[in-house]
Parts: sequence; C-alpha cells; structure tokens
Amino acid sequence: MITIKRLDVADARVLIAGARVKADEIGVPMCIAITDEGGNLIAFERMDGGKVTSSTIAIDKSFTASGAKKATHEYGAASQPGAPAYGIAAAIGGRLMVVGGGLPVIVEGDVVGGIGVSSGTPGQDQEVAQAGIDAFLGGL
Amino acid sequence: MITIKRLDVADARVLIAGARVKADEIGVPMCIAITDEGGNLIAFERMDGGKVTSSTIAIDKSFTASGAKKATHEYGAASQPGAPAYGIAAAIGGRLMVVGGGLPVIVEGDVVGGIGVSSGTPGQDQEVAQAGIDAFLGGL
Amino acid sequence: MITIKRLDVADARVLIAGARVKADEIGVPMCIAITDEGGNLIAFERMDGGKVTSSTIAIDKSFTASGAKKATHEYGAASQPGAPAYGIAAAIGGRLMVVGGGLPVIVEGDVVGGIGVSSGTPGQDQEVAQAGIDAFLGGL
Amino acid sequence: MITIKRLDVADARVLIAGARVKADEIGVPMCIAITDEGGNLIAFERMDGGKVTSSTIAIDKSFTASGAKKATHEYGAASQPGAPAYGIAAAIGGRLMVVGGGLPVIVEGDVVGGIGVSSGTPGQDQEVAQAGIDAFLGGL
Repeated sequence: MITIKRLDVADARVLIAGARVKADEIGVPMCIAITDEGGNLIAFERMDGGKVTSSTIAIDKSFTASGAKKATHEYGAASQPGAPAYGIAAAIGGRLMVVGGGLPVIVEGDVVGGIGVSSGTPGQDQEVAQAGIDAFLGGL
Repeated sequence: MITIKRLDVADARVLIAGARVKADEIGVPMCIAITDEGGNLIAFERMDGGKVTSSTIAIDKSFTASGAKKATHEYGAASQPGAPAYGIAAAIGGRLMVVGGGLPVIVEGDVVGGIGVSSGTPGQDQEVAQAGIDAFLGGL
Repeated sequence: MITIKRLDVADARVLIAGARVKADEIGVPMCIAITDEGGNLIAFERMDGGKVTSSTIAIDKSFTASGAKKATHEYGAASQPGAPAYGIAAAIGGRLMVVGGGLPVIVEGDVVGGIGVSSGTPGQDQEVAQAGIDAFLGGL
Repeated sequence: MITIKRLDVADARVLIAGARVKADEIGVPMCIAITDEGGNLIAFERMDGGKVTSSTIAIDKSFTASGAKKATHEYGAASQPGAPAYGIAAAIGGRLMVVGGGLPVIVEGDVVGGIGVSSGTPGQDQEVAQAGIDAFLGGL
C-alpha cells in the first residue's frame, strides 16, 4: 500500500489567506480553490466581486494542477496548435484547464495538492496562486 | 431594476464556522457549502475526514436551498412516490437535491443565500446546517 | 416530406402572457417556457421572484411535453414504483420531467409545441400552464 | 451582506425588443437571451427563423457576459493561440463563450446583467446585442 501526504483543511485556509492578501494588494477580487492530491476540493472562497463564472474555473484549475501535477499555464504552452497536447483543453468535459492560474502545491518533491485562482488576467491569477503557495511554504 | 440583498464572503465564513462547531460536537467531519441567493457558490470547506463524494452534494444542497428558497428535506417529503413532486430529484442534471441538509438563509423574510451540508446522515447534515444559520443570525 | 405546424414566437408570447395572468392571480411568480413541436425553446420568462432553479425545470417540462406529446404529470403517474415507466425521470440527463407543469399545446389534434411552468407546487404549475394554453386557444 | 442591483423582467423585455428591432433591420432572425448579474436566465426569445442551435449559444453568451463582466468578443481576442486565455472556450463545460454577441449590461459602473445574441455572424450578433443595450439605457 501507499502512504500519501496531502493538504488538510487548515493548510487550505493558509493557502487561501495568502492568495487573498495578494488579490487585495493588486485590487482584483478572486475566486480561490484548494484541492488535495487526489484533485478533490478542500476549500473555496469567492471574494466579494469575484466573477461567478470563475468559481468553476478556479476549482478546475486547482483540480488540473493537483491531479496532473502540473501548472495550468504549462498546459497552455503544450496545447498550442501544432504542439503535442493540442486539444487537451476540451478533455474531461472541459475540466482540464490550460489557462494560467492553477499551480500544484509541492512539499519535499511531492505534490500534496493544488491551488486554482480565477477572475483576473491569467497572469494575475497565477501571481495570486503563487502568493498562496509562498504563504503556505513559508509557514511550514 | 431590482435591488437584492445577499450574503457576502464574511457572512459565509460565519455560517461555515457555526456549522463546523456543531460538526465537531457530534463528531462527524462535514462538507459545508455556502451559496448566494442566485445559487452561486461563495465558500466551501471539506473538514478533514469529510467524504469526497459529499463535496458536490453539499454544493448542490446549498444551490437547491438558495435557488428554490426551500429546505431540501421539504423536497424529500414532497417527492416521495405518489407525492406531487415525485421525480424532481433527477432535475437539473441531478443538482436538485431532495435529501436533508440544505437550508435557505433567510433575513427579514428574504432568502439571501443557502447552506448545504453533507457527510453524515441527512438528519445530522440538517442539524449542522441549522447550527450555521443560528450562528449567522445570532451575530447579526 | 412532411409539413409541420408549429408555434411561432408571437404564439409563444400569447402563451406566456396567459400564464402570467394566472400566476399573478394566484400570487406565485413563475418561470414560464415555450418550446416548439421539436422540443426547441422559443421563449422564456422568469417573473420577478421566480426561482432560479426553476428556469431549467420549466424549460425541461416544456421540452418533455412537446417532444413526448404528453403532459408531464402523466409521466408522474406512469413512473411510480412498479409502474411501466419507472425510472424515466432520470432519462436524457434528467431532462425528462415527470412532475406536473408541462403540457403539450394541441391544435386540431396535432401537438404544435409545449408549455412548461415551475416555481409553485406542481398543481399550481399545471394550472398556470393550462391558463397559457387557454389564452392561446381562445385567441385562435 | 451585500446589496446588488439587477435587471428585472420588464428590463429584460426592453432589451429583447431593442435587439429585435435591429435584427429585423438587418434581416437576420436571432436568438436573444437576457441574464441577471448572477448569470441566471431572465428571458429568452428565438425569432421565427432563428437557429435552434443558437438558443443555448445565446443563453451561454449572456451567462458569460454577465457572470464574467466582460464582452464575449474580448475573450475571443484574449484566447487566440498564443494569447494568455488560450483554451478558455472549453471551460465550464463549454459554457464560457468567446464568440462575439455577448455583452454585459452596465448601469452606473455596475454590471446588472447581460445580453447574448446568436444566429448571425458574430459581428451581427454583437451589433444586435448592442442595440438591445442602447434601447435599455436610452429608456432609463
């Protein structure tokens, strides 16, 4: 059998809080989702003013990053026309997100979960997701 | 145009915290979801040990309670074989929940959102959802 | 080839207006949907205060009634436990509605469309749908 | 709690009527959908001759524009190959529309709903949607 390390709900709150500080700093209310290493949702917050369309997108970015152990913007590069993963954006009923803003959370080389952020530009989303991870890793 | 009152994310955290206290008290780790009056997700937490299948169920219970302005257990009674709403459980791709644990959040006669809880028995889920509402209304 | 008679958008407005009068009369703001004989949506209105969960339900009731040429409450009777159509409520991804409130619109023996109503009790929904049909047929 | 302004059904009818006038003027029968600021459908009409495939597209364009507070053609530009939001068209089960014809309805700086139009070229759809908004804002 395998023993797995994964984020717990207290970790998820730290990740969300860290992301929220950055979202406030750049002035973009965000949807922020945290999943465990199995891709399953642990926690979610839509900040006041966050886009309702971004709830699903944030959850699916986190799902993709944790489940595929890969940042969503990496899929963006890999799925351009002519590139090997072209078309992957439509996979899993559209849940496989290739837009930046989904990052795996990695501890000692293992993916223990993911964070997905949506409502800003993909660059802003990714910056806010990274801030969540920085807050979490800084507190370990 | 219409002017609407709805829960904000700070309210959602109060609702989740109130539900969590009761969940801890009865010893059942729960999935807890909060939606606004339009049925859109504001916040979610899966307590450590909460069922992964219950994430969607909690979100859909909250969606149903806020969107239909009705507790999900009321749909349970109304949709028994031979009752008028029999079969409604399959509506909206199965999102219309008729199992107890989804309650509308009502302030001054208006539905301002909903709470959905899942992982225990429907009775436990409903009790925990009610505790969230009590905590929220008590703090207004 | 076949020549088909179907509702046009002017007819759909008459049906909705007739239903709305009855909804106002009984004091229940409704979602009202009109489909053509192919089950395709022609017109829809959610009255102020109608349930957001009922948008899809009203559309699917109308889809069922026009597409299957049968009132949805008839499916309710036919799909009870032990009855021949038991389980049909889950068909077509849950779009096959067996709850009252969907009626075919019949002109000279032919189904030319459907009306679906949701937000009240199934009995109220059916009454409001019938009022839409009465207004339409009365004006022919 | 938050106080929100949103379109009511009377507003929705004004938006549809304004769009319809333009659709008649350019000779393209359209599907026209109006959603509130939460992305939920308020009203819909498929003009006689409008495409049945465009019903869902019009509804989803309106959902996207109101829920994401952004015109759908802006997503079109942002999601071209190599652009940051490449792949977003598949998000939310394909409901996130990046084709022109979905516009947010903005009153005093706040998004209060959306309009989505489909059956013509994306340019025609957008022109007709804009005509709906112009009629609505002109009547305030």
